[in-house]
Amino acid sequence: MSKDRLIYLPLGGAGEIGMNAYVYGYGPKGRERLILVDLGVTFPDMDTTPGVDLIFPDITWLEENADRLDAIFVTHAHEDHVGAVGHLWNRLKAPVYARAFTAHHARRKMEEHGAPEEEVITASAYPEVIKAGPFTVSFMPLSHSIPESSALVIDTPAGRVVHTGDFKLDETPLVGEPFDPELWAEVAKPGVKALVCDSTNVFSPHEGRSESSVGPEITELVKSAKGMVVATTFASNVARVKTLAEAGKAAGRSVCLLGRAMRRMIEAGITTGVLADFPTTISPEDARELSREDLMLIVTGSQGERRAASAQLARGKYQGLTMAEGDLFLFSSKTIPGNERGVIRIINAYSEMGVDVVDDSSGKYHVSGHANRPDLLRVHEIMQPQMVIPMHGEHRHLREHAKLAMAAGRRSVVAVNGTMLDLTGDAPDVVDCIETGRLYLDGSVKIGAFDGVVRDRIRMALNGHVTATVIIDEEDEPLGDPWVELMGLPETGTSNAPLVDVLEADLGQLLNRMNDKTLGDDDKIEEALRREVRRSASEEIGRKPEVTVVISRLA
Amino acid sequence: MSKDRLIYLPLGGAGEIGMNAYVYGYGPKGRERLILVDLGVTFPDMDTTPGVDLIFPDITWLEENADRLDAIFVTHAHEDHVGAVGHLWNRLKAPVYARAFTAHHARRKMEEHGAPEEEVITASAYPEVIKAGPFTVSFMPLSHSIPESSALVIDTPAGRVVHTGDFKLDETPLVGEPFDPELWAEVAKPGVKALVCDSTNVFSPHEGRSESSVGPEITELVKSAKGMVVATTFASNVARVKTLAEAGKAAGRSVCLLGRAMRRMIEAGITTGVLADFPTTISPEDARELSREDLMLIVTGSQGERRAASAQLARGKYQGLTMAEGDLFLFSSKTIPGNERGVIRIINAYSEMGVDVVDDSSGKYHVSGHANRPDLLRVHEIMQPQMVIPMHGEHRHLREHAKLAMAAGRRSVVAVNGTMLDLTGDAPDVVDCIETGRLYLDGSVKIGAFDGVVRDRIRMALNGHVTATVIIDEEDEPLGDPWVELMGLPETGTSNAPLVDVLEADLGQLLNRMNDKTLGDDDKIEEALRREVRRSASEEIGRKPEVTVVISRLA
Repeated sequence: MSKDRLIYLPLGGAGEIGMNAYVYGYGPKGRERLILVDLGVTFPDMDTTPGVDLIFPDITWLEENADRLDAIFVTHAHEDHVGAVGHLWNRLKAPVYARAFTAHHARRKMEEHGAPEEEVITASAYPEVIKAGPFTVSFMPLSHSIPESSALVIDTPAGRVVHTGDFKLDETPLVGEPFDPELWAEVAKPGVKALVCDSTNVFSPHEGRSESSVGPEITELVKSAKGMVVATTFASNVARVKTLAEAGKAAGRSVCLLGRAMRRMIEAGITTGVLADFPTTISPEDARELSREDLMLIVTGSQGERRAASAQLARGKYQGLTMAEGDLFLFSSKTIPGNERGVIRIINAYSEMGVDVVDDSSGKYHVSGHANRPDLLRVHEIMQPQMVIPMHGEHRHLREHAKLAMAAGRRSVVAVNGTMLDLTGDAPDVVDCIETGRLYLDGSVKIGAFDGVVRDRIRMALNGHVTATVIIDEEDEPLGDPWVELMGLPETGTSNAPLVDVLEADLGQLLNRMNDKTLGDDDKIEEALRREVRRSASEEIGRKPEVTVVISRLA
Repeated sequence: MSKDRLIYLPLGGAGEIGMNAYVYGYGPKGRERLILVDLGVTFPDMDTTPGVDLIFPDITWLEENADRLDAIFVTHAHEDHVGAVGHLWNRLKAPVYARAFTAHHARRKMEEHGAPEEEVITASAYPEVIKAGPFTVSFMPLSHSIPESSALVIDTPAGRVVHTGDFKLDETPLVGEPFDPELWAEVAKPGVKALVCDSTNVFSPHEGRSESSVGPEITELVKSAKGMVVATTFASNVARVKTLAEAGKAAGRSVCLLGRAMRRMIEAGITTGVLADFPTTISPEDARELSREDLMLIVTGSQGERRAASAQLARGKYQGLTMAEGDLFLFSSKTIPGNERGVIRIINAYSEMGVDVVDDSSGKYHVSGHANRPDLLRVHEIMQPQMVIPMHGEHRHLREHAKLAMAAGRRSVVAVNGTMLDLTGDAPDVVDCIETGRLYLDGSVKIGAFDGVVRDRIRMALNGHVTATVIIDEEDEPLGDPWVELMGLPETGTSNAPLVDVLEADLGQLLNRMNDKTLGDDDKIEEALRREVRRSASEEIGRKPEVTVVISRLA
C-alpha cells in the first residue's frame, strides 16, 4: 500500500482558458486507476487556426490508458468543460457523471456525435457520492454563471482533494445554488490535501459582485428605453437571461428569445427543474406584430459571432425582425479577449442604424462568474488545504495564483498541461511530463495541431498560391510551355505585364536551360520550378507565394 | 462670389480609427481649390486582410482632381496621419507642410518611397501662416502623445475652420507644447465656422489625465524592482520614453533603448530640438556587461508585434540580452483593440520565465493621448463653433460626438468617409457622396480592397486548396487519369482512404462519363471538375476547398 500514489495530470485548461481536462489517478506507479474531470473544447481563431471548427485537448495519453479509466465527471455545462464529451467519448468509453442540467447537455452532445447517451449518468449533489475505482466523488454545489456548477470532492486513500471547477462566491445568484460557506467548511473539516482551484480572475483586485446586483440596473435601463430593446448575454447564463426577461416584463414589454442556443438553454433549465418562474415569452412571429416600444428581444451573439442573432440583426434582419433608429441594444456581457473586433463591428453597424448601444464599460450590466483575488484568498482560508494547485488559467494566472497561495504560507506549484504531479506527500511533486497538445476538428475530420494542414492554410493566406504545370514528353523533353494559375495574388506587378505571363516566361526559360538529368527527375524539376516561381514573384510583386507544381509525363 | 462654397470631404479616418485623410475645398462648385489634411495608414489583420502590409485610403477622387490640390498639411507624425505620404505623394504632387518633428518623419518616408524630400516644407507655428490657394493655414500647437501635434486653423473666405487633429487637454505634457486655453480662446475670437474634432475618447466619461501623472508612479515601480526592468510604450510617445528613462536613472540604473523605432524617434526628437535633457543611454553591447539590477531597457513592441523587441525577448533574446526570473516587464501603454492576443501571448511567455509583468490595468502607468468626453465639451465651449464636425473615430464615436454637441445646442452631423459637406451656410449640408475605400500595399504592389485577391486568400485559409489537372489529347479524349494535389487539407477523411485517391477516382469517373461536347469545352470541363472536387471533398472531409483546375490540351 505504501507504494500507491495520488496523481494529478492536466491535459487541458492549465496554461490556457479553455478545453478543460484534468486526470486524477490513484494506485501503484504506472498502474493508477484514473478518473477524468471535464472534457471541454476551445474555439479557433483566424490568426492561428483558420478554417478549424473546434479545438479539443489531445487525450492520446488517456486513450492509451483508457483501460485504467473508471469514470468521467463533468463539473458544469459550459462548452470549455463539456464540449468535447460527444466528440471524444468513443476514445475513452467510461461512464460520464454530471448533475441533471449538465447531464442534459452531455447527453445531447453524445447523441449528436454517435456516442451512447445512456453512458451519461445523472448524479445527485453532496453528500451523495459516486464510487469510481479507488475514488469516492461528490458534487458540491457552488455558484457560477450557469446552473448546477459544482466542485468535486474527491476522496482517495491518500486524502481529500477538492477540485473547484469554475466558481464565484455569490450568496444571491438568482438561479442555482448560492455560495454556502458552511457547506465549504463542512467539506474542509476532515482536512483537504489539495485544493485544485479556478484561477481565471486572480488579477481582479476587488471582491466579486453578485448576479443579483445587475437586475436593478438593467430594469432601470429597460424602463427608460423608448424603442425596441434588444439584449444579449451568454446563453448559458440562464440567471442573466431571466433577469433580462424580468426587466422586460417590468417595463410592460413582451419578451422574445432569439437564437437556437438561447432557446435551448432556457428549455434545458425548465426541463431539468433548475429554472422556475421564467417569464412567458412570445414567438418571433408574434413579436413581428407588436410595436417596437412593447417588445424586448433577448438574443445570442454576445461575442460578435458572425452567425448569431446579434450579428444578423446588425446586417439586416433575423426571423423577420429588424432594428431601427431609437432602439436600444444592451451587451449584458464582457467581450472575451480576441473577440473585440467582431463586437466592435456590430456596435458600429448598429450605430449606422441609429441604434443606441450600451455595453459593460460602466460595470453596471454584467458581473463575472469567477472568483476574484480576495474571493480566492477567502476560499483558501476556509478550506485550509495542504496545497493549492492553480488550474483554469493561462500561465500568468496560474503563476499569480500560486504566488498568492505561497504568500499566505501555503504550498503551491504551477502545473501546466502535461505536468504530472504526485500529491501523496506533504508537497506537490512533479514526477512526469506527458506530451499534450491540441486536436482540431476540421470539417468532419480530426487532425493534429502539428500535422501542417493549418500551417499551410496560414501560409496561403499570407503569401497567396501559384499552380505551375508542365508536361514532359516521352523523350523527357518539355512539351509546350509551362502553365501558371494564380490564387490570392495581384494580377500585375512591377513590370506592368501580367504576373502570369512573367512567371510563365521565366519558367519556360528555366525549362529550356535544364539538362537531361534534371528533366528525368520529377523532384528536381519540381524544386527548380518552385524556386523560380518564388524568385520571379518576389521580383515582380514583392512576395513569395506557396507553389503547387504539377508535372505530367506522357510515358 | 456668392456661388463659391467651402467643402469638407473625409477620404479616411471618419468611420474608423486610422488612415486619416481629410479634404477641404473652396471655390465654385466642382472647381474648388483643394487642400488635404493628413495622409495616414491603417494596419492589416489576419481576419480581414491576411498578407497585406499596409492599408491606405483610396484617394482616387483626389488623384483625379490633383490639378486642383494646392497643398498637403500633416498635423503630427503618427503613422495614421503621416504614414502614406511617401507611398502616395506621386499621385498627388503637392507641397507637404508640417512642423519640424513631423517634417523630419515625412521626409524620411518620401525618401524611402522615391518621392522628393524637398517637397516637405517645415512650417512654423501659429500665428505664422501658409497661403495655399484660397486657404490661409496656421499650425496651432496643442498637446497629444507625440511632439508638435497641431490643430490647423484654416481661414477661408467663408470663415474659419479649426481642424483639431489628435489632441488632449494636457497642461503639463513634459515634452512638447501644453494645452493653452488662452491660445484656443484667441483662435476662437474671430468666430469659428466649424470645429472638425477628434472623437476617439468620446466614450471616456472622466476628464483626461496629464502625462505628468504617470512619472511618479513609474519611478516608484522601477525603484522597487529587484532584477532587470524592461518597459515598453509607443515609440512615438517620446515624453513617456523620457519619463521611463528618467525613472531608470532615478533608480540608479543605466538605460538602454532597444528597437529601431525607439531609437529613431528619440534621435528625431533630439535632432529637431523638441526633446531636451534626454538621459544618457548605453548601447546593447555595454548593457550586456552590466548586472541585471543596474539595468533598465526601454523597448519597442507595446502591441505585441511579433518582430518587435518585446516579442523577441519573450521568445529568447534580443541583441544578446535576455530576460530572467525576477525581472520586471512594464507595459506603459494600452492594448489597441484587436491586439489583445499578441500582447497576452507575450505576457504568458514572460510568466513562464518567471518575469513579473505589470500592465495598465491599474490605470497608473499609462494615460491616453486623446480628449475625453468632458474635455471635448470644454473645447466646444471655448471655441463656440457654428458647427461641430466629428472626425477621427469609428461610426459609434462620430455619432456619440455629434449627439454630445447637439445636446449642447450646437449643429453637428455624422459625416463618414466619402461624405462631402458644404460648410458655407449656417449648418453642414451633405452635398455629395464620393466613392471611397481602401488601397492595400501587398508586397510591393498596391491593390484595391475589392480586387478579390485578399478574398481568395481568406477562402484558401478557411477551406484549403486543391489543384486538379487533366490532359486532353488531340481527339478530345482524356489522356490518363486526372491528377490531384492538396494544400492545407487533411490527408484522409471519412472513408479512411487517402483524400487524393478518392478525389482522383471521382474525377476519373466524371471524365469517363463526359460527352464529346463537354470534353471539347475547357470552361465546361473546369466547372464540372471544380464542382466534383467540392462535392467529393465535402463528403470525405466535411468542407469544400478552393479549386484550381488545369486543363492541358495536346493540340
